[in-house]
Amino acid sequence: MRMYDIINQKKRGRALSREEICFAVEGFTKGEIPDYQMSALLMAVCFQGMNEEETLQLTLAMRDSGDVLDLSRIDGMKVDKHSTGGVGDKVSLILTPMVAALGIPVAKMSGRGLGHTGGTIDKLECFPGFSTELTEKEFYRNVNRIKMAIVGQTANLAPADKKLYALRDVTATVDQLSLIASSIMSKKLAAGADAIVLDVKTGNGAFMKEEEDAFALAREMVQIGKNAGKKMSAVVTDMSQPLGNAVGNSLEVKEAILALNGLGPADLMEVVYALGAEMVLAAGKASGQEEAVEILQQTIQNKTALDKFAEFIEAQGGEKRLVYQPECLPSASIQLQVINTEAGFVTELLAEEIGLASLALGGGRATKESEIDLSVGILLNKKRGDAVAPGDTLAAVYANDMERAKEAYGRIVRAYTVQAEKPEKIPMIKGVVR
Amino acid sequence: MRMYDIINQKKRGRALSREEICFAVEGFTKGEIPDYQMSALLMAVCFQGMNEEETLQLTLAMRDSGDVLDLSRIDGMKVDKHSTGGVGDKVSLILTPMVAALGIPVAKMSGRGLGHTGGTIDKLECFPGFSTELTEKEFYRNVNRIKMAIVGQTANLAPADKKLYALRDVTATVDQLSLIASSIMSKKLAAGADAIVLDVKTGNGAFMKEEEDAFALAREMVQIGKNAGKKMSAVVTDMSQPLGNAVGNSLEVKEAILALNGLGPADLMEVVYALGAEMVLAAGKASGQEEAVEILQQTIQNKTALDKFAEFIEAQGGEKRLVYQPECLPSASIQLQVINTEAGFVTELLAEEIGLASLALGGGRATKESEIDLSVGILLNKKRGDAVAPGDTLAAVYANDMERAKEAYGRIVRAYTVQAEKPEKIPMIKGVVR
Repeated sequence: MRMYDIINQKKRGRALSREEICFAVEGFTKGEIPDYQMSALLMAVCFQGMNEEETLQLTLAMRDSGDVLDLSRIDGMKVDKHSTGGVGDKVSLILTPMVAALGIPVAKMSGRGLGHTGGTIDKLECFPGFSTELTEKEFYRNVNRIKMAIVGQTANLAPADKKLYALRDVTATVDQLSLIASSIMSKKLAAGADAIVLDVKTGNGAFMKEEEDAFALAREMVQIGKNAGKKMSAVVTDMSQPLGNAVGNSLEVKEAILALNGLGPADLMEVVYALGAEMVLAAGKASGQEEAVEILQQTIQNKTALDKFAEFIEAQGGEKRLVYQPECLPSASIQLQVINTEAGFVTELLAEEIGLASLALGGGRATKESEIDLSVGILLNKKRGDAVAPGDTLAAVYANDMERAKEAYGRIVRAYTVQAEKPEKIPMIKGVVR
Repeated sequence: MRMYDIINQKKRGRALSREEICFAVEGFTKGEIPDYQMSALLMAVCFQGMNEEETLQLTLAMRDSGDVLDLSRIDGMKVDKHSTGGVGDKVSLILTPMVAALGIPVAKMSGRGLGHTGGTIDKLECFPGFSTELTEKEFYRNVNRIKMAIVGQTANLAPADKKLYALRDVTATVDQLSLIASSIMSKKLAAGADAIVLDVKTGNGAFMKEEEDAFALAREMVQIGKNAGKKMSAVVTDMSQPLGNAVGNSLEVKEAILALNGLGPADLMEVVYALGAEMVLAAGKASGQEEAVEILQQTIQNKTALDKFAEFIEAQGGEKRLVYQPECLPSASIQLQVINTEAGFVTELLAEEIGLASLALGGGRATKESEIDLSVGILLNKKRGDAVAPGDTLAAVYANDMERAKEAYGRIVRAYTVQAEKPEKIPMIKGVVR
């Protein structure tokens, strides 16, 4: 088998066999196939696409390039949840303890933030002492005992995907649907859950700007998961504006704790319940969506989700009391109000600009090596559709450096559009793919 | 400027600017742009193509990556001739002295053979002492004095093309029209002639198997040359069977000398005159094609072309007397007849198989490093359209090794198809692009 022929096949629009895909992925991962041949193949895939079987085989080859977790030592139906990434997305922080409070085990691997989107691991590190570096034994034990654990991705999770992604990133071959879907799914499959619920974001703050593309990605990922023997569902949700009101690590944790106390913003909770229902249904804990939402709501009302969150923080070395005293979580020294000047309605609140504002404050990573400031961020006071008068506070900047605060301020001003006419409501949940 | 953006532009089907193309070619040649980005760009070009202006700019950027010859020290209109390569193509050996005999200066750079096609330089080395390594000064002086010189390509002629071609060769990105055309033309433009006549071969023994593709390549190259300020024409000629009867270095030189004595096979001479007429017209030495052919024929009749060839061989250190005693040129020790078994007509004589037979005998190079045997080859006794009876000799193998002779024999048998019905004549000259 020669890589040249594999490139040539794909260039001519022919499907690759399982053997050819494994040969390419394994050879590339081992460094036996040079980058320049793989990038030519990737570009050919961008033009010719891959069929369902090829996409599955690519996903499996990447999954099998490293460790594949065996969660059989955890009792029950293990459900994982994954978001394609957005601004202000603290759903995992709220939903994981809710689901765990219902006895559904969640053994979760999360990532760190990069660029304008945040990551669950960074947010959890707002709790001093909290560690995401559990041994495999601790991980399984915690899930069995308290039904939840969240760890960072192991270095050897789908290394082929890591190497391929790095190459795609510098050769303009990131945006091909099957490549995106197989990249995400290779890691999810390696993480070993029985059921996977995907939150596919769409809108200007998401990777998939167009709803149509988001649905296509959702379908592609659900298909891969099903073909690999997993229970799958994907919820396509809005990311045209940030989710909830808080953006920035500590601010988001505070908002998550508010939500666990029954005080979460409506848009955020709508997404929490939509995804939560899929998780509960996948675990077989409810017979319909309505019932699923109902039992999830109970975990908020009876505070079992809040207590589960505290238990989880403690189990991974964090200070439990902070869950009940969120005002003691990291906070920034400077606060700057963004004041509205025109009467009307917020017709647009660009998620990406707000994400970049948070990045400018030091709340995110420009590169993988960047240090982040957990305390900074933005609280949105007005969101899309809200009526605003001159003098109203649109948002507040939380910063530790005046220069950075000013840069973020400028971005926030640009993120808001105020116009005379009230905009039509954008639904939070675009649809579910099962 | 970033290579990433250049790849992305082309991937999205947008034209690249002169600056972008220069940035990519220069950066790649210097090693500042990695192979994996260039191969991604090349694959994108295979799908999106390049427009006329982009193709010109790529050609110029490759031309300017190394030495560009200044032929202004040679008097008159310098005319170059280039063939895209075929089997039995000894046109340059015959035509160059014919044209030079008419006072048209030919300052030619030629290549060596590779794979199943031969090269002019190898053929000329059948003359002991002959050297193609002239200094620039000797090169100009010879052309001014005797109107012709043939040298090997300098190492620093279009190095960008050399590096790009090596990458295309291993990434399945060779067969894109603009890339092929710019690769050939970058070297031709660097060689400095005022007018360029191209022989674009088509048929199974040529790179362009289909006539349509050959015409497209011819048009593309003529357009590049014109846009670069050169007088251009391209003749599309048949390569479905070998040109003439001799294949193999020494055998081809002997056939060329026969041709200069007025005894050349008809198909070969038809191509010689078609290309020669274009050269004579480009040099302004005739007012029409008929006149051009006429004055070319005179150089054969009055033996001035033969004497010019002898003068040229001597000027570059070779033994002049061999031009008049070609029987003393290298000859092989074994001769094997390929005998026909069925009555009918030769309906096919595959050029590529004959080329590979010559390669098997040791007459060509499998890789750039191979040593070649100048004396071996094949003489074709019957060609396409010829009537054949059982017992007729189809071809003769000239070899120095019985095993190799047998391998060549097998290929020659496969190359010939004999059928009952006489095939339609295939015209040698498919057309001219100016």
